Amino acid sequence: MPFRAPVTDFQFLFDHVVDFAQIIETERFAETDNDTRDAILLEAGKMVEEVMAPLQRVGDLQGAVLENGVVRTTPGFSDAYQQIAEGGWISMSALPENGGMGLPHSVTTAVNEMMGSGCLSLQLNPLMTQGQIEALEHHASDEVKEMFLSKLVTGEWSGTMNLTEPAAGSDVGALRTKAERNDDGTYSVTGQKIYITWGDNDFTSNVSHLVLARLPDGGNGTKGISLFIVPKFLPDENGDYVVPNTLKVVSLEHKLGIHGSPTAVMQYDGAKGWLVGKEHDGMKAMFTMMNNARLGVGGQGVGVAEAAYQHALAYAMDRVQGRSPIQGGTGSIMDHADVRRMLTGMKADIFAARAIEMACAVALDMGTATNAKDWHARAAFLTPIAKAFGTDTGIKVAEDGVQVHGGMGFIEETGAAQFSRDVRITAIYEGTNGIQSMDLVARKLMDGGDAAYAILDEIEDCAEKVRESMADLAEPLWQATETLREATEWMVAQGDLNDRFAGAVPFLRGFARVLGGYYHLRAAIAEGGEGPRSKLAKFYIKRLLPEHAGLLAHAMEGAGDLYALSPEELGAA
Amino acid sequence: MPFRAPVTDFQFLFDHVVDFAQIIETERFAETDNDTRDAILLEAGKMVEEVMAPLQRVGDLQGAVLENGVVRTTPGFSDAYQQIAEGGWISMSALPENGGMGLPHSVTTAVNEMMGSGCLSLQLNPLMTQGQIEALEHHASDEVKEMFLSKLVTGEWSGTMNLTEPAAGSDVGALRTKAERNDDGTYSVTGQKIYITWGDNDFTSNVSHLVLARLPDGGNGTKGISLFIVPKFLPDENGDYVVPNTLKVVSLEHKLGIHGSPTAVMQYDGAKGWLVGKEHDGMKAMFTMMNNARLGVGGQGVGVAEAAYQHALAYAMDRVQGRSPIQGGTGSIMDHADVRRMLTGMKADIFAARAIEMACAVALDMGTATNAKDWHARAAFLTPIAKAFGTDTGIKVAEDGVQVHGGMGFIEETGAAQFSRDVRITAIYEGTNGIQSMDLVARKLMDGGDAAYAILDEIEDCAEKVRESMADLAEPLWQATETLREATEWMVAQGDLNDRFAGAVPFLRGFARVLGGYYHLRAAIAEGGEGPRSKLAKFYIKRLLPEHAGLLAHAMEGAGDLYALSPEELGAA
Repeated sequence: MPFRAPVTDFQFLFDHVVDFAQIIETERFAETDNDTRDAILLEAGKMVEEVMAPLQRVGDLQGAVLENGVVRTTPGFSDAYQQIAEGGWISMSALPENGGMGLPHSVTTAVNEMMGSGCLSLQLNPLMTQGQIEALEHHASDEVKEMFLSKLVTGEWSGTMNLTEPAAGSDVGALRTKAERNDDGTYSVTGQKIYITWGDNDFTSNVSHLVLARLPDGGNGTKGISLFIVPKFLPDENGDYVVPNTLKVVSLEHKLGIHGSPTAVMQYDGAKGWLVGKEHDGMKAMFTMMNNARLGVGGQGVGVAEAAYQHALAYAMDRVQGRSPIQGGTGSIMDHADVRRMLTGMKADIFAARAIEMACAVALDMGTATNAKDWHARAAFLTPIAKAFGTDTGIKVAEDGVQVHGGMGFIEETGAAQFSRDVRITAIYEGTNGIQSMDLVARKLMDGGDAAYAILDEIEDCAEKVRESMADLAEPLWQATETLREATEWMVAQGDLNDRFAGAVPFLRGFARVLGGYYHLRAAIAEGGEGPRSKLAKFYIKRLLPEHAGLLAHAMEGAGDLYALSPEELGAA
Repeated sequence: MPFRAPVTDFQFLFDHVVDFAQIIETERFAETDNDTRDAILLEAGKMVEEVMAPLQRVGDLQGAVLENGVVRTTPGFSDAYQQIAEGGWISMSALPENGGMGLPHSVTTAVNEMMGSGCLSLQLNPLMTQGQIEALEHHASDEVKEMFLSKLVTGEWSGTMNLTEPAAGSDVGALRTKAERNDDGTYSVTGQKIYITWGDNDFTSNVSHLVLARLPDGGNGTKGISLFIVPKFLPDENGDYVVPNTLKVVSLEHKLGIHGSPTAVMQYDGAKGWLVGKEHDGMKAMFTMMNNARLGVGGQGVGVAEAAYQHALAYAMDRVQGRSPIQGGTGSIMDHADVRRMLTGMKADIFAARAIEMACAVALDMGTATNAKDWHARAAFLTPIAKAFGTDTGIKVAEDGVQVHGGMGFIEETGAAQFSRDVRITAIYEGTNGIQSMDLVARKLMDGGDAAYAILDEIEDCAEKVRESMADLAEPLWQATETLREATEWMVAQGDLNDRFAGAVPFLRGFARVLGGYYHLRAAIAEGGEGPRSKLAKFYIKRLLPEHAGLLAHAMEGAGDLYALSPEELGAA
């Protein structure tokens, strides 16, 4: 069954749930209107369906390989990439002065999600480039912008992000890659980086690597780290980028999924690079790139969930087995309550995760457009939730998709298992979901909970308004929000961060559960309480929202008894 | 890190949690004593550590292949299989008159679980043979027993189970394979079967297939099905089994995991077979095999969970990263609260799932020994819970194991991902976990809930006794049991089975959550409330038990709104 881009779902969310209208009322995004937005979504959806989705299986079966030091990509990826680049899908949100379209990030987020549904491995390539464009726009000197931006925006070059080293993963500050100043204002970078997504390819004429490294006078920890942009090819005397830089792909990883995306070990041996941002201040620029990448990864989770859902639904509609347990059924396994439960739950979770994703994107756009503190705070607060819940949902929905297929789900040819393998990485990269949760309960609550409470107030205001007219939805949501408020207050009150960290993951999940209920309620309100979105909201609020209680109870247990068992006792059989 | 068999955990469960002592007080199992039991567990654990665990990765990398119609198995499997057979590990519970050791099934269950930890792909082979032995012991004629049992018990031959056809999966009654009566009392079987685990191998001299098929006068549905045993090789005039039967392996599946276990499409073309049980009554014999296989599969889930847990724990102990957030920590990522939360949760869930598994096995043994209705009912009630919760736990723990590894978890060489791929099938085969849940709320509540209430009474009696001395554990468990009682009463009261089915999966999960809390409490009581098992019980009851509320709320929603969304609305983007 071919993938069908969920364009109308995005339109509905924009128009009725996450208030896209306020974005195009700002000066910054005044040139976007709903027609433009819808035309872009439609066009992108068509491209994904026709160009990317057919490559999903191919990328798995014929993944990227390293041959004599050169990365060979999946057959078809090169052509598809050219179409992505020519369609302008890489640079939708890049600034017009840099050759982009200057569109709201929320539109780009929707397009990226659809591309992630189509072919996750290939989508990762432009996603990385987008992050690099954004980092350069915010932090690079005019010289560096001049050198790199125009090539990245057109897709002639692609970009990567080099943080991780064997001994520096979640703890970036431990990195050992060195940089030295050259006489001409450039730098020489030496060291090894691992897990470099799309570290090389055979379809762009150059690859520019953003590399974190430490100058000789850079202090320990994250504060002594600088950021450099290091291209695969350097310019010759005519300004043509044909001179090989002293960097190479050492090897590609053999991974559980996303075989089409080459994950490289990169070696830099005095490779020439240019500083991005200020010396010793590289983490700031990297965080710009990472924060948006985190939302983008959340969107990958939702995108794979959508594809896995459609795949499972088509199978269920097609699979006839057993007597139908209901009158007037379809005759397929869709008639079975447990199959319905799985499929409806998948759809309800996708709606919730996508709404959180788009709400985060809208907050980002409003922050960009207004520079208002509250919008920045909301975007920052929603980012780890969008990342972790989006990817948890991707994993869960893909798992349920396998289960709907029964025995066929375990057979690779079916394709259901691939979604499950591919999406697994999204809970790990760009900061594991554990790291996202710790970010939420520590940094994102440093405001004493203001950003969190603003969201809770908004939910309760909404629930209050329909507390009588839509009591069966509003009442449980209102109660759940109160429980979440207590849990948030508990978190804020913990002086020892470790007590927060002990419950960080269940807190984030509980927060997302309630927030998802809110957006479902808004969808139901938009429909006047009648229609498919209202029925989906009812399913979510009655059957899935109750999970918040167990999660939030877990969240408030603190760290004490977590360390009660010694490592030896944990190991003792 | 090499796998370490959890022998002491089994001993503790037997002695303090599931009351093994009552088994060896029966006449049937009077020859077993605790010393024998412990010697067997130790010996089996040693064999698993030394012989099977080293083959885990090999089986993944060099899976079974079909070459010119012949299955070639993973290098090392043949030798290991011989050691398994010679050690008597296949026929521990077979009757002494058939060459077995006549040991309680609970001991076999423990050994099988350890073997599943060591190498799931290989363990499946003897597990299938065990099921076949049991089906023959209960249902075969003396002639058939004479022909097959002695060869199966020694492991010279292996056994398979042939139920599924392309159009008959969960709905076995739809099968099309035909059988015809021959003049000599044998039968000719014709048809195609799929998903045949270990459909062939290159290390046993014969393979005997239990095949469900329909005689010409067999009615429609499950009641017209008969069971046949069909060997790969038939006897020649000297009684040597060297004459090829008219059956063959058509192909092997390309699967997500358990690559070492050949999953075959089998073709029978008038293959000669012998009847097992009565004509048209084959499902009864097949259920004998399936019920024990279900418990065995639950044990596979627990076994993989144990191996994945040990693997993740070793990684976490070894992985140094970042500043330690606690004083006096190990310096490894074990010091991080979120890593502790994951690892302790994994261990707590393994304990719960294993206790349910062993409680089910003990009930089976007591049923065998006493033929008491209550014991049969308890074993029947616990079987779907042991299967579904054991395998759900396997999947969840393996997933968490990947997450503990961070980026390394996605790299296949690490081995964490393999556990996750391998164990995924356990929630699907031997009846999906959805089918298990439907069995629980329909067939297993046909007694009006007697078997369920007997368990709930037992839990409350236990909690009541320590309600003051161990209030922090007993009180939440008592409350949870009351909620579970309400949910059980609700289930029993639903006249329309579809209302039960709509909540079957969350009901089973909620039941398992509470039951796990009970066994944790018993462990804590055995320790006097002090010690590592009490700390683990506290973790479970405080942090994981609360999940029961959300699950049971979901369970009691009924089928109504599950069908509110039409297939078209589910599909509408």
